[in-house]
Amino acid sequence: MIDPSFSLRTPDDDNLPRRICDHCDYVAYENPKIVVGSVVRHEGRILLCRRAIEPRRGFWTIPAGYMELNETPEDGARREAMEEAEADLGIERLLAVYSVPRISQVQLIYRAKLKTAHVAPGPESLEVQLFEPAAIPYGELAFPSVHWALAHDAEAEAGAPPVPFSNPPGESGSRMPDGQPIADGEV
Amino acid sequence: MIDPSFSLRTPDDDNLPRRICDHCDYVAYENPKIVVGSVVRHEGRILLCRRAIEPRRGFWTIPAGYMELNETPEDGARREAMEEAEADLGIERLLAVYSVPRISQVQLIYRAKLKTAHVAPGPESLEVQLFEPAAIPYGELAFPSVHWALAHDAEAEAGAPPVPFSNPPGESGSRMPDGQPIADGEV
Repeated sequence: MIDPSFSLRTPDDDNLPRRICDHCDYVAYENPKIVVGSVVRHEGRILLCRRAIEPRRGFWTIPAGYMELNETPEDGARREAMEEAEADLGIERLLAVYSVPRISQVQLIYRAKLKTAHVAPGPESLEVQLFEPAAIPYGELAFPSVHWALAHDAEAEAGAPPVPFSNPPGESGSRMPDGQPIADGEV
Repeated sequence: MIDPSFSLRTPDDDNLPRRICDHCDYVAYENPKIVVGSVVRHEGRILLCRRAIEPRRGFWTIPAGYMELNETPEDGARREAMEEAEADLGIERLLAVYSVPRISQVQLIYRAKLKTAHVAPGPESLEVQLFEPAAIPYGELAFPSVHWALAHDAEAEAGAPPVPFSNPPGESGSRMPDGQPIADGEV
């Protein structure tokens, strides 16, 4: 077994440098990644998961993660909620499309309801909990976009028209609303 | 230089098989790809580009392409219109979020206007043209999602509320509306 080794070069049929293997010329194209997730409500409470993995282990997040191949975004959002919280979701609609260009992420966040009351921590969660809105641990949220999604979901709940939100004005996911340092990765 | 060689194996910290290099154990993670594009209007006409590249060379499409690293979706949609049609776009809003799970694509399609009247074919276009809606060459469109986007833009123009559309009911991008065979790739 040899060591992986890549150099930045521009392929003949391209106009940007890409990571190309020094041993076999394989082009490791990197593309923006899609995160799919949900703000999940059950009887007025909101489902959050305390992360068991880095980045931001121990902090609270909505169920979300990287979309896999050959699934729809809605299927991906349901899969993530099942993996992280054993939660069976009924997806209602698209709540928001966020982008975090610093880490080349696009996030598709849905509004959802629990189909059954069962929730339990999956392998990537230390614990899961349904919070009354007033009890959400805002000082212990994992990522800027978790703040955005919870605020936008509250606006939707208060009657905002069903037009998906995008990043709050001027925000690109590079700071936490309360000035805390951000983590290296998002969801 | 050796030949690229990959096998499907499941990494230790993962739960799905991935393409792993037989020479150096590099994991070539594959993720869904994001296509960003626009239905562009100018004085009631709609901008289409005749493709100079495969798949579907010679067929008409809206300006669209793969989102690059470290850009927002809106920046990507503007970049693609500049590259394919030398068109300077003012983006108005998100028209639709489509998914084509067969080829692991999510498409973010915007409504846009030309900021100046200038359009001209870029290297990936044989020609570009502003079509009156009644003159759109529906029999020569490149992809199912081009049909969807044009139909949804017409609904928006006719006063549909500004809620993004998704795939037409039952459609997953696996057939052209007129029964033509589909191309292997999308945009």
